[in-house]
Amino acid sequence: MALYSTLDKAQLEEEYKKLSEQLAQYKEKGLSLNMARGKPGAEQVSLSNDMFGVVTSETNFKTEDCPDIRNYGNLYGIIEARKLFASILDVDPENVFVGGNSSLNLMFDTIACLMKQGAGGIPWNKQEKLKFLCPAPGYDRHFGITEYFGFEMIPVPMTKTGPDMDVVEKLVAEDDTIKGIWCVPKYSNPQGITYSDETVRRFAALKPAAKDFRIMWDNAYIIHDINDTPDKLLNIFDELKKTGNEDLVFEFCSTSKITFPGSGVAAVAASKDNLQRINNRYTYTTIGFDKINMLRHVLYFKDLNGVLAHMQKHRAILEPRFKTVVDMLNSELSEYGVAKWENPNGGYFVSVDVTEGCAKRVVALCKEAGVILTDAGATYPYGNDPKDSNIRIAPSYPPVEELKTAMEVFCISAKLATVEKLLNA
Amino acid sequence: MALYSTLDKAQLEEEYKKLSEQLAQYKEKGLSLNMARGKPGAEQVSLSNDMFGVVTSETNFKTEDCPDIRNYGNLYGIIEARKLFASILDVDPENVFVGGNSSLNLMFDTIACLMKQGAGGIPWNKQEKLKFLCPAPGYDRHFGITEYFGFEMIPVPMTKTGPDMDVVEKLVAEDDTIKGIWCVPKYSNPQGITYSDETVRRFAALKPAAKDFRIMWDNAYIIHDINDTPDKLLNIFDELKKTGNEDLVFEFCSTSKITFPGSGVAAVAASKDNLQRINNRYTYTTIGFDKINMLRHVLYFKDLNGVLAHMQKHRAILEPRFKTVVDMLNSELSEYGVAKWENPNGGYFVSVDVTEGCAKRVVALCKEAGVILTDAGATYPYGNDPKDSNIRIAPSYPPVEELKTAMEVFCISAKLATVEKLLNA
Repeated sequence: MALYSTLDKAQLEEEYKKLSEQLAQYKEKGLSLNMARGKPGAEQVSLSNDMFGVVTSETNFKTEDCPDIRNYGNLYGIIEARKLFASILDVDPENVFVGGNSSLNLMFDTIACLMKQGAGGIPWNKQEKLKFLCPAPGYDRHFGITEYFGFEMIPVPMTKTGPDMDVVEKLVAEDDTIKGIWCVPKYSNPQGITYSDETVRRFAALKPAAKDFRIMWDNAYIIHDINDTPDKLLNIFDELKKTGNEDLVFEFCSTSKITFPGSGVAAVAASKDNLQRINNRYTYTTIGFDKINMLRHVLYFKDLNGVLAHMQKHRAILEPRFKTVVDMLNSELSEYGVAKWENPNGGYFVSVDVTEGCAKRVVALCKEAGVILTDAGATYPYGNDPKDSNIRIAPSYPPVEELKTAMEVFCISAKLATVEKLLNA
Repeated sequence: MALYSTLDKAQLEEEYKKLSEQLAQYKEKGLSLNMARGKPGAEQVSLSNDMFGVVTSETNFKTEDCPDIRNYGNLYGIIEARKLFASILDVDPENVFVGGNSSLNLMFDTIACLMKQGAGGIPWNKQEKLKFLCPAPGYDRHFGITEYFGFEMIPVPMTKTGPDMDVVEKLVAEDDTIKGIWCVPKYSNPQGITYSDETVRRFAALKPAAKDFRIMWDNAYIIHDINDTPDKLLNIFDELKKTGNEDLVFEFCSTSKITFPGSGVAAVAASKDNLQRINNRYTYTTIGFDKINMLRHVLYFKDLNGVLAHMQKHRAILEPRFKTVVDMLNSELSEYGVAKWENPNGGYFVSVDVTEGCAKRVVALCKEAGVILTDAGATYPYGNDPKDSNIRIAPSYPPVEELKTAMEVFCISAKLATVEKLLNA
C-alpha cells in the first residue's frame, strides 16, 4: 500500500469498503473506551494510597510557622509545603503561595484577580478591549477561562520549540490590549513540546506594549517525564532575574497528576508584587486552604527526591501506554500519509494532526465505534481549529489492554476519514 | 458601689485610681491572650482526630455517582456528601453543591459569579451603582467581600429577633440598586441572635425592587448549640416554597467548626437556577473539589445523627467557656451600668456593648495588658461603629484557665474606659 494521495478512485473505493468493514466489526463489540481527558488511570491513583496513613492523631500538628495546622490560618500555606513546591519549581519559598486542590482554580482566580484589581495599571475589567494570546493547539480549559472573562483570544502557532516567538513579540509590542499569554512550557498540552532555551529567554525578555501584560506559565508537567530522554526546560524565573522582568510571570503547578487528581495541592510562584496582588484578593476569599492535606503531602514525600522517586512509578505505568499509542500510529498510519504526530518525552498527550478537514469526522467515527476522544477543535480557542486537523489523544486513562483496541479504532477512523475526503474531492 | 453614672467626680477619681492599679498588675504579668477570632480551641480540633483513620488504602473509592473518588470529576461533589449536607440543612440533595474547605470562599465566589454573570438581569458589575444591606453588628469577613467588590454597604440595625425587617423591607422596596443582604440567621455573628419565625417569613416574602436581589444566608452555626435551650430557626427554603421565591436565597454552611477549620468541607444550597449560575462559573474554575475529604467526612459521620452527636462534644467544651464569660460580665459589670451583653444559646461569640464612645478605648486598654480582642468597629461595615460601643468576644480559643484572666482584664478595661469618659465629660 502507498500514500492514499497517490491512489486512483477504484483503489480508494476498495480501501473505503475494507476500512468500513473493519470499523463495523469494532462497532459490533459495543466498546466504551475513553481517551478524552488527561486523567490518570486507576493504577496511577493507587500509587499514592499510602498517603492516607501519614497523618494520624499522633502527628505533630505544630509546624515551623503554624501552631496547629488543623486550625485556621496561614493564607500562603505552611512553610514546609511552600518549600516543597519551591524545590520542585526551583524558586525561593518566599515566592510560593500554596493553595487548594487545583492549579486551574489558582489560574482562574489569578485572572479574576487581575480583572478586578489590575496588574499595576487600570483594572483589566475597566479597560475597553481585552485580548489574550493562546498558543494553539493548546489546553481547552485555559481558553475557557479567558473566554469566560470576555477576552478576545488570538491563536499563536506552535512550533517545535514552543509558540512562534516572532509572532508573540510582534503582537505584544504592537497591541497594548493584549494582556497575557497561556503557556504550558514543558510537555505542552497537547503536543508534548518543551519550550527551547531560546524560547524561554525570549519570553523572559518580552517587551509588551501593555505594562500590565502577564505570562500564565502553567508548568503542569514539570516533572512528568515518561522515558530516559526527558526534556529540559530553562527556569523562567532565573531568566527573568537577568532581564529584571520578574513581574511578568505567574507560574503554576500541582500534585494532581503526582498524588490524587482533585485531592492534591496546587501552588503558584510569582514575584513579591504579584503575590501581593493574589494576597489582596485571597485575604477576602478565604481564611486559608487545606493545611492538613499540605502536611500530608510534605510528610509523604519528605523532599524533592521523594517526589521524583514517586514520579518514576508513574513513568513505569505511562511509558508503555505512550509507546502503544505511538507504535500503533507508526505501524498503522505512516505509510498512508494520513496523519502526523508528536512523540513526546513526557506529559499526558499525544497530539495527532490528521488530514486537513478530517478531525471532526475522525472523532465522530471513533465515537460511533465506542471510542471517546477530546472534541475536535477543543485544542483551539473557541473550539475552532481552522484546519480541522488536530486531535488530542490521552493514553493514561483506559486500561492498557483496551488502549490498543481504542488505537485500532482511531487508526481505522483516521484512514477512513481521509479516504472519504479523497473520494469526495 | 453603684452605677458609675451616679458617682461624683471624687468618687470617679478614686475608682479611676483603683482600676488603673488593677490593670497595671495584669500588665506586669506579660499576658498574651487572644479572644479575637471565632477559632476553635486545641481541645476542639482534637475531637476529630479519628477522621484521619477513616480513609485508607482499603476504602471503597467507588461511590454512588463516582467511579473513583480519588480521580477527577463530580463538580457538584459526591452525592453522599451532598446528602449529608442536605440532611444538615434540611433541603433536597439536588439543591446542594459541595465545594472546597471554606464556606467563605463559596460566598466570595457566589458574589464574584453574580458580579460577572448577574442574577437574571444585567451583570452586577455592569450596573452603575451597587449597594448591599449589612445587618450590624455583623461579620467583618462578609463586609470585606462586598467592600472588595465595590458595594456601598448600608448598615441595618439588629434587633432581638434579627435584622430590623421594617427597615429591610422599606429599603429593598424603594431602591433597586440594593442587590442583597448578609444574614447569619442562627446565633448571629457576633450577637448570637437567632432570627424569629416572623423574621424568616418576612425574608421569604421579601419583594425587592431589584429582581436580581439575593439573600446570602450564612447558616454557619446551624447546629452549633451550646446548652440545653437551643434556639430554633425556621427553614428558609420551606418558607420560600410557600412564597414562590426560591431564587431569593443562597444558603451556606461548612464543617469548619465541626471537624477542622481549614480542612473541613463547605456547601451551598440554592434553587436549580441559582445552582446553575454557580455551575456556570465553577465549570471554568476547576474540575472538581476534594472528594477524598468529602468521603472522609461521610464515612466518619455516617449521617446527621453522627454529626449531631459530635456537636455534643463541642458543646461540652464550649458551654463552660461561654458561662465563664457571661458569669464574669454579670458579676463584674452589672452593678456599674457600663455594658450590655447577649447570653447566646450557641454560636461562637458574646457581643458586648460597652459605654458609647468607649469600645476603641477598651480594646486598646486590653491590648496594653496583653489581651487581644477583635478590633472595635470590626462588626460594622467599613469598621465604623457609629456608637463606638460594640465589642465581640470569642471565648473558644484561649485555654479555659486563661479565659478567666482575659475576662478580668476585659471587665477592668470596660470599667476604666467608662470612668475615663465620665471624668472627661
